Amino acid sequence: MSETDSAEIISVGTELLLGEILNTNAQFLAQELARLGIPHYYQTVVGDNILRFQKALAIACERSRLLIFTGGLGPTPDDLTTEAIADFFQVPLIERAEILDDIAQKYAQRGRVMSPSNRKQALLPQGADILPNPTGSAPGMLWQPRPGLTLMTFPGVPSEMKIMWHQTAVPFLRRQGWGQATIHSRTLRFWGIAESSLAEKAAAQLQLTNPTVAPYAGNGEVRLRISAKAATEAEAMALIQPVEQQLRDLAGLDYYGANEDSLASVLGDLLKQRGQTLAVAESCTGGGLGELITTVPGSSAYFKGGIIAYDNQVKIDLLGVRDADLASQGAVSDAVAQQMAAGVRQRLGTTWGLSITGIAGPDGGTATKPVGLVYIGLAGPSDQVESQRYLFGSRGRELIRWLSSCSALDWLRRKLLLLNR
Amino acid sequence: MSETDSAEIISVGTELLLGEILNTNAQFLAQELARLGIPHYYQTVVGDNILRFQKALAIACERSRLLIFTGGLGPTPDDLTTEAIADFFQVPLIERAEILDDIAQKYAQRGRVMSPSNRKQALLPQGADILPNPTGSAPGMLWQPRPGLTLMTFPGVPSEMKIMWHQTAVPFLRRQGWGQATIHSRTLRFWGIAESSLAEKAAAQLQLTNPTVAPYAGNGEVRLRISAKAATEAEAMALIQPVEQQLRDLAGLDYYGANEDSLASVLGDLLKQRGQTLAVAESCTGGGLGELITTVPGSSAYFKGGIIAYDNQVKIDLLGVRDADLASQGAVSDAVAQQMAAGVRQRLGTTWGLSITGIAGPDGGTATKPVGLVYIGLAGPSDQVESQRYLFGSRGRELIRWLSSCSALDWLRRKLLLLNR
Repeated sequence: MSETDSAEIISVGTELLLGEILNTNAQFLAQELARLGIPHYYQTVVGDNILRFQKALAIACERSRLLIFTGGLGPTPDDLTTEAIADFFQVPLIERAEILDDIAQKYAQRGRVMSPSNRKQALLPQGADILPNPTGSAPGMLWQPRPGLTLMTFPGVPSEMKIMWHQTAVPFLRRQGWGQATIHSRTLRFWGIAESSLAEKAAAQLQLTNPTVAPYAGNGEVRLRISAKAATEAEAMALIQPVEQQLRDLAGLDYYGANEDSLASVLGDLLKQRGQTLAVAESCTGGGLGELITTVPGSSAYFKGGIIAYDNQVKIDLLGVRDADLASQGAVSDAVAQQMAAGVRQRLGTTWGLSITGIAGPDGGTATKPVGLVYIGLAGPSDQVESQRYLFGSRGRELIRWLSSCSALDWLRRKLLLLNR
Repeated sequence: MSETDSAEIISVGTELLLGEILNTNAQFLAQELARLGIPHYYQTVVGDNILRFQKALAIACERSRLLIFTGGLGPTPDDLTTEAIADFFQVPLIERAEILDDIAQKYAQRGRVMSPSNRKQALLPQGADILPNPTGSAPGMLWQPRPGLTLMTFPGVPSEMKIMWHQTAVPFLRRQGWGQATIHSRTLRFWGIAESSLAEKAAAQLQLTNPTVAPYAGNGEVRLRISAKAATEAEAMALIQPVEQQLRDLAGLDYYGANEDSLASVLGDLLKQRGQTLAVAESCTGGGLGELITTVPGSSAYFKGGIIAYDNQVKIDLLGVRDADLASQGAVSDAVAQQMAAGVRQRLGTTWGLSITGIAGPDGGTATKPVGLVYIGLAGPSDQVESQRYLFGSRGRELIRWLSSCSALDWLRRKLLLLNR
């Protein structure tokens, strides 16, 4: 491939130049281009200004052959991507009846009336194909304004852009012959082990060249991405498989899943396999554990519900926590965590009851019970009840709550796997 | 200021082009430039390749007057920023004894010996000033290779870059006369109105030049950012204040807060002012409403807790929903939403009870009850109970659940404001 056989990502939006949002779209697209084996040498960010946009476009046309734009497709006057592209190539904008119909229908579904400014979103340059947007109002375009130059436009909303990329852009690129020698990856997911410890265990694998193994960490989770370059997906997977097995073997129970798996989905599968059910009792997470469990479609097969006992009186009235234990040991204690778990299991009649009580901060910590102290309770068959104490440190309210919920899911996951042995 | 009196951020690193890391440095620097009132029209990302780096540098020199580089200052062969800049301007690299001493001393402090590759980090173009790095080994440079062009280089490690920026770069820029006039912004937040409708109402304000008003939208919320350029913060705020008042007046109750406010924090303040309390009953959101309410520190002052009634039996047993209504009208109905709200209010003894029952999908929709259909119930003083029906459309499970929780918060917010009139 020559130097210019490459893609360029052009992110449009003054909010990026003001630092109001993080350019996660560029990262997603960069990962996707890498995955497809499409070379990618430059990224540009430009604001909502037609002259500067067109200058950036002129530069990109010279050095790249596939231009991927995000942002600037909305209905307001500062959304100028489509208009600026058509003007640059001196091609008229044509109103597409099918886009207008689609927008009107989406508004109707939500019980709203389309406003006149949405009309603008139905305009595309003559000759451009529609890049459908199944979840939002603004479609993008797929266009070859001249031989050897392909343009794709996406809205700036990440969720809309990602669906459009997977559903339409990737198949289009494959048909055009991009991404033939491909890179395939699998991401292995770990919980309960530090990145540095896992990296030491996997030192040999981290040295490999094909496949490569790269570590990532964040929000309590560690990931290892195994990437293989090969002519076909099957060949790539054959390179990945033995390395994956080595990594899983050396991590033991700290490995919990791969790719799109989450702690909630993996735990859900284990419960479903066993025909078991779960209920939750939450204090400091305020519903976050239930929310996480129910992100999984079909979770109603094993999740019955729970009690958010933010107030101590609710712990007493609805979960049967003993007033005396609350007074003597405090709401953040082994005793209360255990009684919450047992109480919700009994009240909802489930196989398992999981509870969380802790100090998420920023206030409420003391010398003996600091911010980040969390007790998790687990009640199970034969009325067995246990609790565990966690110290998450002063890492901010949101992270403490997240780590609490994930740790609860992880504990029951390990329990089920160990019981099965 | 002329068009070229602006800054450009150039992020260097193949890991950015592979999507392995998120470009948080660009966001930090963008925010800082905005804060200092330094115009900033372009950002570029380029990999660890000397030719492409120099091409990007050539373009940046043409259109910008202050070039800020991050990345490529390390000791390994792929770290090429300093070398490529010196070569581009045809100026020799000179080894700086003070840098070499500093690196050797830092290594000694950590009980390590400097490796020969670190020697490279002591090289700077002739005439360039050292930009000291107090926490890492690689210093940057401050250099005017020709009149009217300033270059600054920083390591890619965010923590090192930020300290260098604040300690040395900002004072340097101020001395050079940059950042005399500053930009201040306020972000107004709206719920329950489409971006296009709000933009039409605010058409006159969107035309202003100082302050400017820019719309953003995402996840059901619309924001208007008012930005004013002035010599002092007080002057900027004096420009912003009347425009803010106009926008709030024309939006009415659709305006809910500014800057860091959230629907949950605004509702929390209203409840606290009134000495009232809240409980929630959740089906499809699975705890997400409670989770959202308790993101606010201090929410225990008004939030007592709730019942996650994911399973219908839990709706009957814990919330007192009538079996007959579940059978005849289904769990997703006005009747069930109302009984859930009334039930949780009664069980937890709160002023208000909010409930959510709906079809989040992807499965479970029918012709009469499609995915995205959600009922919200609200029970309040004097045992008054109401419900509202929402159609969020097939916008994905997570967005439907998010919109449901936010709509519930928004309904009670409006209710409290209207009762107060």
